[in-house]
Amino acid sequence: MIVGLELDWRRLLRTTGPLLVALFAYDIVVAVAYTYLNVRWLAIDGLPVPLLGTAIGVFLALRNNVAYARWWEARTLWGAVVNASRSLVRATLAMVPDPEVRRQIAYLQIAYVIALRCGLRRLDPWPEVAPLLPEATAARLRGSANLATQLLAEQARLLSVQNDEDGDSRMIRLGTFDRTLSDLSNAQGGLERIRNTPLPRHFDHFPRFVITAYGVLLPLGLVAGLEMLTPLGSTLISAVFFALDRIGVDLETPLDNTVHDVPMTAITRTIEIDLRQMLGETAVPKPVTPVGGVLW
Amino acid sequence: MIVGLELDWRRLLRTTGPLLVALFAYDIVVAVAYTYLNVRWLAIDGLPVPLLGTAIGVFLALRNNVAYARWWEARTLWGAVVNASRSLVRATLAMVPDPEVRRQIAYLQIAYVIALRCGLRRLDPWPEVAPLLPEATAARLRGSANLATQLLAEQARLLSVQNDEDGDSRMIRLGTFDRTLSDLSNAQGGLERIRNTPLPRHFDHFPRFVITAYGVLLPLGLVAGLEMLTPLGSTLISAVFFALDRIGVDLETPLDNTVHDVPMTAITRTIEIDLRQMLGETAVPKPVTPVGGVLW
Amino acid sequence: MIVGLELDWRRLLRTTGPLLVALFAYDIVVAVAYTYLNVRWLAIDGLPVPLLGTAIGVFLALRNNVAYARWWEARTLWGAVVNASRSLVRATLAMVPDPEVRRQIAYLQIAYVIALRCGLRRLDPWPEVAPLLPEATAARLRGSANLATQLLAEQARLLSVQNDEDGDSRMIRLGTFDRTLSDLSNAQGGLERIRNTPLPRHFDHFPRFVITAYGVLLPLGLVAGLEMLTPLGSTLISAVFFALDRIGVDLETPLDNTVHDVPMTAITRTIEIDLRQMLGETAVPKPVTPVGGVLW
Amino acid sequence: MIVGLELDWRRLLRTTGPLLVALFAYDIVVAVAYTYLNVRWLAIDGLPVPLLGTAIGVFLALRNNVAYARWWEARTLWGAVVNASRSLVRATLAMVPDPEVRRQIAYLQIAYVIALRCGLRRLDPWPEVAPLLPEATAARLRGSANLATQLLAEQARLLSVQNDEDGDSRMIRLGTFDRTLSDLSNAQGGLERIRNTPLPRHFDHFPRFVITAYGVLLPLGLVAGLEMLTPLGSTLISAVFFALDRIGVDLETPLDNTVHDVPMTAITRTIEIDLRQMLGETAVPKPVTPVGGVLW
Amino acid sequence: MIVGLELDWRRLLRTTGPLLVALFAYDIVVAVAYTYLNVRWLAIDGLPVPLLGTAIGVFLALRNNVAYARWWEARTLWGAVVNASRSLVRATLAMVPDPEVRRQIAYLQIAYVIALRCGLRRLDPWPEVAPLLPEATAARLRGSANLATQLLAEQARLLSVQNDEDGDSRMIRLGTFDRTLSDLSNAQGGLERIRNTPLPRHFDHFPRFVITAYGVLLPLGLVAGLEMLTPLGSTLISAVFFALDRIGVDLETPLDNTVHDVPMTAITRTIEIDLRQMLGETAVPKPVTPVGGVLW
Repeated sequence: MIVGLELDWRRLLRTTGPLLVALFAYDIVVAVAYTYLNVRWLAIDGLPVPLLGTAIGVFLALRNNVAYARWWEARTLWGAVVNASRSLVRATLAMVPDPEVRRQIAYLQIAYVIALRCGLRRLDPWPEVAPLLPEATAARLRGSANLATQLLAEQARLLSVQNDEDGDSRMIRLGTFDRTLSDLSNAQGGLERIRNTPLPRHFDHFPRFVITAYGVLLPLGLVAGLEMLTPLGSTLISAVFFALDRIGVDLETPLDNTVHDVPMTAITRTIEIDLRQMLGETAVPKPVTPVGGVLW
Repeated sequence: MIVGLELDWRRLLRTTGPLLVALFAYDIVVAVAYTYLNVRWLAIDGLPVPLLGTAIGVFLALRNNVAYARWWEARTLWGAVVNASRSLVRATLAMVPDPEVRRQIAYLQIAYVIALRCGLRRLDPWPEVAPLLPEATAARLRGSANLATQLLAEQARLLSVQNDEDGDSRMIRLGTFDRTLSDLSNAQGGLERIRNTPLPRHFDHFPRFVITAYGVLLPLGLVAGLEMLTPLGSTLISAVFFALDRIGVDLETPLDNTVHDVPMTAITRTIEIDLRQMLGETAVPKPVTPVGGVLW
Repeated sequence: MIVGLELDWRRLLRTTGPLLVALFAYDIVVAVAYTYLNVRWLAIDGLPVPLLGTAIGVFLALRNNVAYARWWEARTLWGAVVNASRSLVRATLAMVPDPEVRRQIAYLQIAYVIALRCGLRRLDPWPEVAPLLPEATAARLRGSANLATQLLAEQARLLSVQNDEDGDSRMIRLGTFDRTLSDLSNAQGGLERIRNTPLPRHFDHFPRFVITAYGVLLPLGLVAGLEMLTPLGSTLISAVFFALDRIGVDLETPLDNTVHDVPMTAITRTIEIDLRQMLGETAVPKPVTPVGGVLW
Repeated sequence: MIVGLELDWRRLLRTTGPLLVALFAYDIVVAVAYTYLNVRWLAIDGLPVPLLGTAIGVFLALRNNVAYARWWEARTLWGAVVNASRSLVRATLAMVPDPEVRRQIAYLQIAYVIALRCGLRRLDPWPEVAPLLPEATAARLRGSANLATQLLAEQARLLSVQNDEDGDSRMIRLGTFDRTLSDLSNAQGGLERIRNTPLPRHFDHFPRFVITAYGVLLPLGLVAGLEMLTPLGSTLISAVFFALDRIGVDLETPLDNTVHDVPMTAITRTIEIDLRQMLGETAVPKPVTPVGGVLW
Repeated sequence: MIVGLELDWRRLLRTTGPLLVALFAYDIVVAVAYTYLNVRWLAIDGLPVPLLGTAIGVFLALRNNVAYARWWEARTLWGAVVNASRSLVRATLAMVPDPEVRRQIAYLQIAYVIALRCGLRRLDPWPEVAPLLPEATAARLRGSANLATQLLAEQARLLSVQNDEDGDSRMIRLGTFDRTLSDLSNAQGGLERIRNTPLPRHFDHFPRFVITAYGVLLPLGLVAGLEMLTPLGSTLISAVFFALDRIGVDLETPLDNTVHDVPMTAITRTIEIDLRQMLGETAVPKPVTPVGGVLW
């Protein structure tokens, strides 16, 4: 996630620069050809340019609304993982008397959020996860199709063998923890849904095709009136549409390990710090800080 | 669900190709008739073409918002089925001591998601469901109006006869499971609602009729200005509106067994793999993979 | 609810036909008067017709979004009644040992959904409800201001007298059922809210007035350019706006017993079938089928 | 809330009449000055009137969406108060054996909804609330900053002293009631949020200022083309924008004791009737009926 | 939060005044140069000004929708903190017999909401929080990365050591409080999410850049038609777009300690008053009142 309040012009230029340069060059060519080389057939007066603009507007409004909603839902779901992680460990403080079990649950939970992050980013979780788990558990879970799901199940198994009290109390405790574990399941499932369900392809290909056609036709429609000033109007308008398209592209895949990502590394680190401080640990890792204005 | 990141041009051409060809041919005919055959009455100058464009924009924006919302709600509800299925079996790990009962619950749940998928797709569930159920249960449930609903009731029956503990613990456990079973009921009911409630017919027929009228009138309004370039402007704009209409049509029925469907076969397979790995099984089926860029 | 996938042209013509004929006749009159009778003052060139179109678009987009949201919320709330009805009876299978009490709860619930439907449609529920209730109960509840509310309270009374187990178990069971009964309360309250709160009157009267004014002015603005072709542009555009208005009118009252209604009779029948099959009954009523393409 | 299906033209004229008359008079003056008095500089041909119209459209669409959402959320939250009030008393039928305590809870709840209504409308609740409370309670709660909050706390106190059963049952009952009381807290907090948080002032002042500027400029832009017909186009368009603005103003304060209010008196009466009939009372007050088409 | 119903023109002028003056001066310069100094090349007739207006409209509609949603979500989440704080203390009245523990919980909760407010505003919470906590607790929690989270954990610790009853009752009570503490966790996490996740930078920089370009080009496009009246049209339209941009900027950071903020000081004071009155205290602090029309 980009956190710098200033726009990073270099990054912007790297992604949209070539396109804008190409557009501008094309507009210049059209303007020169018409004005100085007298290529009169380039000017197409009756082009229904505003009409096409309206249609593109409808398209982009729809797509960008949807792309933003995906990005914000992904961020909200990671927020839910944070909340439920804190609630899980807070509940152990109230309901689980054995401090060693509390510690195990907290560390399982840290392993869980790391496994979830690596699963979404399609990275191998084991280098980070293995040190947090007892060896037997690690061995048993290697090869799981969905490691995060199996780690949640592990929480349930661990809680179930705590029977330092009478049976009813144990069952009530299990029922309470079940609620928080289900909240985690729901957030995880939501994140996997966004990761695995691309926006319908229509939303990507059609707008880009139409905007490009628009960029090609626009100077032809304007050149008769603007002559050498054609690029001024044409490039500006096309740039706005390309920028609108770009927003959609950047936001529609919020979990795909790009700079526009939800900052999952920073979030999982925050969870780790909070959970360990709840256990009373004082030596905790440092928060993740932005690198070049980007928080990962 | 189409998962290939590239647009499949052949599929696109198959669905919208004929229409575009027809449009283009018509535009050519109008342009030729006006420019070379001098059929001057074809050009209708005062046509309020932009006005009609605005009205169509309002219509399509409304319809496509609604169609996308249906598609995403269907996907989200299937996600809820995934989450609750995992939570159900995870809760058995904590709260049900008998491994055989855990296994029965997990297999009933796999049968449930298959029955739900087949019910939505209007297919016979029994070939897939029968091997997962005890024979007596299968016999009793044949003929159910809604097999999925009866399979959830079966879960409740199975849980209720587990009385290896004192009465209170049993009741607390039933209360906890009741929450997850109700989540499943709610997701299932939501999916049936989307399946059984078509979008109000207005949303389909009116836009198509108006867009077609628009496609017919547009070249008449443009031909005086564009002459032989008429198809360039006219076909492009009509194509954008037809594409917008197409998106709505593709997304409004997300559970009807088309290529734009929620990939229910893949989702139910994922559930099966996760639940079996939670039981400790290592020989699990393979995930469903896309066929020709389409995940079913 | 209209379920036929084909538009029923006869129904459409019956509702919007007269209006369209009137519009078309008026447009013809204007065109003839201007073109052949030379009534030149009819043509008002400077009319800001597109501006008015934009304002109407804003109005209709707002209204139709809201109307659709009401319709879909009503449908979703009836879905919640279905889900909670199934959950209620499923919970009796797990938690209520006495089969006679299970049966009473299921039949009370069937009576509840019928009372809810009749209450919303302002029909007398007693002919359908009376046969489902014990006579004493029926006598006590006659004269209730809100029969559905009192039937839910009856469920609570019935559950409360089941004390075949120790006190704690009984209380846990009551707590679990309370959740499902509250879900039913919430859905019912939502339906009554939609039924009793008409859309603010502004949303109905202003658009219709403005569209009508628009239909009257439009041919005057177009006739100078289009002459005898005026009706072609004018009637088409007005028809689109009237169609958009019609959608809003049809959807804004989804519980008022019209053809655009939520199909409450069919939904309550589905509930009845599912609940009775959960009790093990095999002789159940048939589902409601559409009559002339309309499901009630 | 206005319930009459017919628009009350007199009310409308009273609120927007003077403005429309002023606009119309101004338009007439412009038209006469230009056409007959030859004040040619009044006509400003190049005014970008449609552009301004688009900007106003964006503004009003945003504002009216938000205003409607506030109105509907307020209505929905009052619906939640209805639902939770019914659920609270229904739960006493199942879980509280002493009929006198049931009665006290129901009457406290009636006092609660009245206190909530009066608090939102900034009226003194005591004349209505005092007769419903035991004198000691009333004396203790006088002077509360937020009477409704303290009445909910009173429910908790009353429930807590019911110890006719063993400790566990009592605690389970308290846990169940806590859920419903929290639902009431949430609805109450939501209503106070809407009441105490005005829409950002931008949303009110800017649109009105711009629409007024628009109303002043519009006839100047149209008069050259329309001459004496200027008011026909100008007043109509301005009226549409003023009507759109009016909708926002009417709906944005749904709890401020105006005719566009949520009908809180009627809703609290409905609650009173339902709760008393649940206690078995037959002598209940009559529902509130509309006065002059307005339900309060 | 600005609560005065009248717009504070001085504040407005301070923020947007300089910009408007600059725009107006520029427009005057263009008008004078063209009209009196005969700088004819300033007039660019063919500028597609309306097209650019449409594109900006799409942009601003999207951005302002999103900014308002952030503002309202932040307000709603603080409302949830209010509701859950009341519910927490209300539950102690029912479920915690020891009045001293009730008091401690209420004061911890007051400390919690203050810590949350200071954390969001990046202020040191200790001057306000320290007097509310036992010294040992304060010492232990100094240095917490997230003080609010640790204070919630403290609530859990405090509740867990109350064992004046048998084990089951204690566990049921812990389960009930866990629900309310999780609600607080969720609201807190949501507020931190909004605070820490800036709106994607695209949404800020692009619109401002495009609007500025628009403000520069607009008088060039209008001057040929309007001559010395150019500023009338140009400044007005630009002002509307800048105002729309301003709304977004003001609302998109609702927790950043500006005048457009959610009034967190007032809300936390309200919570303090309500909780202390629930304990029966009569000497409570006064509500926060607006200073210069702004509630903090």
